[in-house]
Amino acid sequence: MADTTGSGAAQPVRYAMIGGGKDAFIGAVHRMAAALDQQAVLTAGALSSTPEKAIASARELGLPSDRGYGSWEELLEKESARPEGERVDFVSIVTPNDTHFPIAKAAVEAGFHVVLDKPMVHSSAQAAELTAAVEQSGVVFAVTYNYTGYPLVRHAADMVRGGEIGEVRKVFVEYHQGWLSTKLEDTDLKQAGWRTDPARSGIAGCVGDIGTHAENLVATVTGLEIEALAADLSTFVPGRRLDDDAAVLMRYRGGAKGTLTCSQVCWGEENNLTLRVYGTKGALAWRQEEPNALRHIDADGVRRELTRGGPGLSAAAGDATRIPPGHPEAFIEAFANVYRGALDAMRGVKSSLAERFPTVHDGARGVRFIEAVVESGQKDAAWVTF
Amino acid sequence: MADTTGSGAAQPVRYAMIGGGKDAFIGAVHRMAAALDQQAVLTAGALSSTPEKAIASARELGLPSDRGYGSWEELLEKESARPEGERVDFVSIVTPNDTHFPIAKAAVEAGFHVVLDKPMVHSSAQAAELTAAVEQSGVVFAVTYNYTGYPLVRHAADMVRGGEIGEVRKVFVEYHQGWLSTKLEDTDLKQAGWRTDPARSGIAGCVGDIGTHAENLVATVTGLEIEALAADLSTFVPGRRLDDDAAVLMRYRGGAKGTLTCSQVCWGEENNLTLRVYGTKGALAWRQEEPNALRHIDADGVRRELTRGGPGLSAAAGDATRIPPGHPEAFIEAFANVYRGALDAMRGVKSSLAERFPTVHDGARGVRFIEAVVESGQKDAAWVTF
Amino acid sequence: MADTTGSGAAQPVRYAMIGGGKDAFIGAVHRMAAALDQQAVLTAGALSSTPEKAIASARELGLPSDRGYGSWEELLEKESARPEGERVDFVSIVTPNDTHFPIAKAAVEAGFHVVLDKPMVHSSAQAAELTAAVEQSGVVFAVTYNYTGYPLVRHAADMVRGGEIGEVRKVFVEYHQGWLSTKLEDTDLKQAGWRTDPARSGIAGCVGDIGTHAENLVATVTGLEIEALAADLSTFVPGRRLDDDAAVLMRYRGGAKGTLTCSQVCWGEENNLTLRVYGTKGALAWRQEEPNALRHIDADGVRRELTRGGPGLSAAAGDATRIPPGHPEAFIEAFANVYRGALDAMRGVKSSLAERFPTVHDGARGVRFIEAVVESGQKDAAWVTF
Amino acid sequence: MADTTGSGAAQPVRYAMIGGGKDAFIGAVHRMAAALDQQAVLTAGALSSTPEKAIASARELGLPSDRGYGSWEELLEKESARPEGERVDFVSIVTPNDTHFPIAKAAVEAGFHVVLDKPMVHSSAQAAELTAAVEQSGVVFAVTYNYTGYPLVRHAADMVRGGEIGEVRKVFVEYHQGWLSTKLEDTDLKQAGWRTDPARSGIAGCVGDIGTHAENLVATVTGLEIEALAADLSTFVPGRRLDDDAAVLMRYRGGAKGTLTCSQVCWGEENNLTLRVYGTKGALAWRQEEPNALRHIDADGVRRELTRGGPGLSAAAGDATRIPPGHPEAFIEAFANVYRGALDAMRGVKSSLAERFPTVHDGARGVRFIEAVVESGQKDAAWVTF
Repeated sequence: MADTTGSGAAQPVRYAMIGGGKDAFIGAVHRMAAALDQQAVLTAGALSSTPEKAIASARELGLPSDRGYGSWEELLEKESARPEGERVDFVSIVTPNDTHFPIAKAAVEAGFHVVLDKPMVHSSAQAAELTAAVEQSGVVFAVTYNYTGYPLVRHAADMVRGGEIGEVRKVFVEYHQGWLSTKLEDTDLKQAGWRTDPARSGIAGCVGDIGTHAENLVATVTGLEIEALAADLSTFVPGRRLDDDAAVLMRYRGGAKGTLTCSQVCWGEENNLTLRVYGTKGALAWRQEEPNALRHIDADGVRRELTRGGPGLSAAAGDATRIPPGHPEAFIEAFANVYRGALDAMRGVKSSLAERFPTVHDGARGVRFIEAVVESGQKDAAWVTF
Repeated sequence: MADTTGSGAAQPVRYAMIGGGKDAFIGAVHRMAAALDQQAVLTAGALSSTPEKAIASARELGLPSDRGYGSWEELLEKESARPEGERVDFVSIVTPNDTHFPIAKAAVEAGFHVVLDKPMVHSSAQAAELTAAVEQSGVVFAVTYNYTGYPLVRHAADMVRGGEIGEVRKVFVEYHQGWLSTKLEDTDLKQAGWRTDPARSGIAGCVGDIGTHAENLVATVTGLEIEALAADLSTFVPGRRLDDDAAVLMRYRGGAKGTLTCSQVCWGEENNLTLRVYGTKGALAWRQEEPNALRHIDADGVRRELTRGGPGLSAAAGDATRIPPGHPEAFIEAFANVYRGALDAMRGVKSSLAERFPTVHDGARGVRFIEAVVESGQKDAAWVTF
Repeated sequence: MADTTGSGAAQPVRYAMIGGGKDAFIGAVHRMAAALDQQAVLTAGALSSTPEKAIASARELGLPSDRGYGSWEELLEKESARPEGERVDFVSIVTPNDTHFPIAKAAVEAGFHVVLDKPMVHSSAQAAELTAAVEQSGVVFAVTYNYTGYPLVRHAADMVRGGEIGEVRKVFVEYHQGWLSTKLEDTDLKQAGWRTDPARSGIAGCVGDIGTHAENLVATVTGLEIEALAADLSTFVPGRRLDDDAAVLMRYRGGAKGTLTCSQVCWGEENNLTLRVYGTKGALAWRQEEPNALRHIDADGVRRELTRGGPGLSAAAGDATRIPPGHPEAFIEAFANVYRGALDAMRGVKSSLAERFPTVHDGARGVRFIEAVVESGQKDAAWVTF
Repeated sequence: MADTTGSGAAQPVRYAMIGGGKDAFIGAVHRMAAALDQQAVLTAGALSSTPEKAIASARELGLPSDRGYGSWEELLEKESARPEGERVDFVSIVTPNDTHFPIAKAAVEAGFHVVLDKPMVHSSAQAAELTAAVEQSGVVFAVTYNYTGYPLVRHAADMVRGGEIGEVRKVFVEYHQGWLSTKLEDTDLKQAGWRTDPARSGIAGCVGDIGTHAENLVATVTGLEIEALAADLSTFVPGRRLDDDAAVLMRYRGGAKGTLTCSQVCWGEENNLTLRVYGTKGALAWRQEEPNALRHIDADGVRRELTRGGPGLSAAAGDATRIPPGHPEAFIEAFANVYRGALDAMRGVKSSLAERFPTVHDGARGVRFIEAVVESGQKDAAWVTF
């Protein structure tokens, strides 16, 4: 099981948050994920897009008055000016998509490690530029494809890589939500507003918000590389400016095929991310809403349910586990595993956690996926090669 | 609940079976379905493709020696020659696909009611000819899309038609099996042999065997009409001569969309036919392997599980139910409901069962679906309009 | 898989039903169970307690007018008088409990095989007398503890007997229904009336109706013998004349212990019969409402789900199976397995089905169980030895 | 949803931990629970029973050298001596049971707020003394019956109290684990050692470790008061010195009844705490291993699944929720809710969280329950009144 006693954590890491002020759901999630293992301390912030709100949010979060900044530019500048041992070690960027690129690039160039929300940036051109900057600076750069942090996702990856289900033939991945079944962007709900606004969200709506998680989950578990895809992209809610649904035929190098569906108009679905992988001698299924079970059909056709913390799990799954089986872990714990991996990397700790957090390359591939789906969608589901 | 006391059944119907001899799984299923309600009696048979086996099978089933025929031609001829009140009322045809058309057409033209396995025939041309024959003769003609016989499928149809989930936006249907994950056709398994043989099975393998059930289930529950489809058709097992997998993007008239996937190489899957329907104010999900539950998300977002025989079900669901809730019914009972509907129709009984069994028109649409999927598959998933 | 082609069934068995007229749920179930495999034909009946209703019911079921009898006495007398080869081979007795003893004893003494509903009789004294009669006559005598007919119950029994879960330590069995949560006996519901009437139902209500099934299921699967029990017996619905709930502490010979709970006031429960068995190196769980799955935790702690018809099942489970995995079987099919076993026994066929149907000894033990629970309940849950 | 932005939390609370050093599972859980919401900071500790280990553990956790104490007595003395604003606000006591009483009493008398593991103390006499001390001092005193922290447990309580299932008739609660199926206390596993040692664990093993959680869960959700109980107490593993299993018949004031079973020899069970409550017009079921769903059967008999964060939940359930539905929360989050409630109480914040954490009275009732079960067990399941 994971070492949660804090061993070696005598020096918690300091971090700054950009975005994530009051009412921003994802900012609070990042802070809980960072706090859970008591190895990172929120030390500074530029928490909102206006200086007033940013500073008020910093006060609410108990930041010292000289470290609640009015803008991200000011944060990067003033934190850079602080002496090592006092300035923040990394920045966590949880702003809407349109600001990811400039902020992340500036942070990287200023030498800060970065934890960034997905989708990473707006275009493959930006992704390439950011990737180059990361490679040049040598900082740790994590993209929060948080579902990769679940212990049983890691075990599933180890099973597939270890040949336990043979060669993969078919992959079914779906990420279905219902929260945008009505035109929520016409209400006060801030998140619905920016996520359906091309200026802020980018070229894709549902595909960029959740489809990219589905793509990443397949890559994480199977290692398959996309060869081509054909997407039927839809906007079901009248007047909506971006897609709210997609169905994608997937072809992977080596002959495997799959379907990827994502939707935010599946009435009543909460956060139904489900992966099923069928190989030549076994199968796996995992469902995010019940993340403590991994279903496995073995070479004899016997159905087995593997449980988090239970018998027979891989070392990496164990490293991502905090408490015993039957004491369920969930979303925040998985998110915290991405943070722990990035922190280990920042501190030079060698661990499976450090090897497995999603990086700038995952981020770049995610952006390419979004572009390909949108391109295919615009061409009436023509095949787009990857 | 259904009247299962046999009221009005004082005169059970006589039937003949064509095909379905020893070791033929589906023949035994038809006989159990016909026998369950004690309203049909197997009276004659041409049970195998060779006279010797046919006659031996008839003897094993306890048929009188003069009604175990050596061929279907002989059966139709000699039964036709018997006086009314003695000759069989209908024939149940459970042969491999390639013989469906000639037998069914001859039976119809001889004035017998017919119960026929799916897929109905090999081509839309045959379907049109058979449909015309049925219409001309006026006989009852049932195609055993047996999954339509489940009470909760009927209730789901009533909910959708009654507007309980609003307007349908998205449909996900899948029919996944694993039994053909290896090259079973190289073994002695008779069914694997003919189902993967184009000469006997027709232009499609998996799509014709199970994909057509999936199409039919969507039509039964939603009433949606296919506008166009794009199919990625695959043969995963090397050397196999027909498809063993398909992923199909579906577009329905009026704007709904969906995905239909069918596969016989999903390792370990048994008979996983699952339907999910999302509307503008509700959702439904049903899974054939646990057929006594229908999941419903209502307009308030509350998840409800409706149970067969439980509170709030439609009259037609009740008519298709034999025993109380919690006393599960399953595959054979659903199959028997198709038979009961056909029998009611033959006897002129007006009932929801008689209104709902799949007819020659369902059969014809199923054939058209198979053709469209194969055509799209051959054109690398180009859209084929319906 | 079971031979369902009817092989060897050239001579279906003739039977008479006593009780089970119109609106009697259980009579229709017995008839479907007997008909399913086309090996038994309803030939005569004394279907109701009044001659008029009995004869009307016989007519509705299509019985010839000379075999729809006005009383069971008449039936036994007149059928006995018929020549062998024409008279019925067995009688199926589905009357309220109070008439079980006289009818069954008379039928046995008249040399008819008997299929009888549970609870067998009203007292251990009657049970002993009936057992003696059965032993003297040598007839086949089946008591329809129908849940024993499920294939996975048979497999569970084979696993326990084969030592696959080690030595049994703990057994949890529950049979919870909700249909008597209100005073239904004050309505027209016939079944609620007699089941809560001591004159007809006997000394127990819920315990005699369903608790006895729970006891039988434990015995069938584990083979454990009851050493002592302590029961808290309750009547929750005001004015009800018999128990509607019981919680029983169980001690088995050899040191295993358990709890047995049965209730008909568990609001909303349908027919929730569930068994869990924990041994020194494994565990099993089965739930009647989803009867096609058996959960097994193996010696390594791995959770496995065994499916009816799936890999690794025992021969006896296979013999009780008609159709492939994923094509669910349910209540009626399980009931039919009890019938098939009795029929095999009547015809001298050696089969696992013939070895496993519940006999007069199961019936007698069931009666003793009911008496012990009632005695303990009356003594405020004092231990009663068995 | 819960305010997780840290509003008002500008001054995190300081706490000391007693026990919970390296390898102590429950200490790490408490620290994560305290850290999650960033409102409490571990500031001091006496983390192990020997000074050397205690100080080493403190160093590993990054405590300043002057606040890693060698014993709890030293901790209380030296922290008391520090000025307000610097000394810890509360102590979290996570030692084996035998030290709970002296430590907790001393901490209370020294004026510290206390968070204490269950079972609270060894006897009702100690419980009375401790309760008096708490009442006299006025400190906040929380006992970590952590399962009460789950949002859906709080909603279930609100439903029962609000009459949504009518009057409660039957309660089934079970807490089944399998980890002590073998004689683990003969291995190095520290926890197995002390939990089966009467000197450290007290008069009960399984009942004190987990049975008490089951009792507390029933009280939390239903508010029912125990009138009498009859317990069959067992030790299945040869040589074990305390019980590892119990089955208890429960009678509540007002006429409701129930069964409570707890076991640590249910092979393969992880942490299976399940509660079912049946009322006169509804039912509820909740399972700790899948804590984000609450099953409800409503007055019409419709089965509903309520989800954490989903539609229709009570205000208190919302207060205990951090992230949206479908983003599962689990064990640590529930544990953190107990902490948040205690913290709110310490800071004088009025909130549902502050109203609902388990107090010294829950702790005292839990001790009484353990005593009653052991007494009944020793008297062969005689009724013990409460």
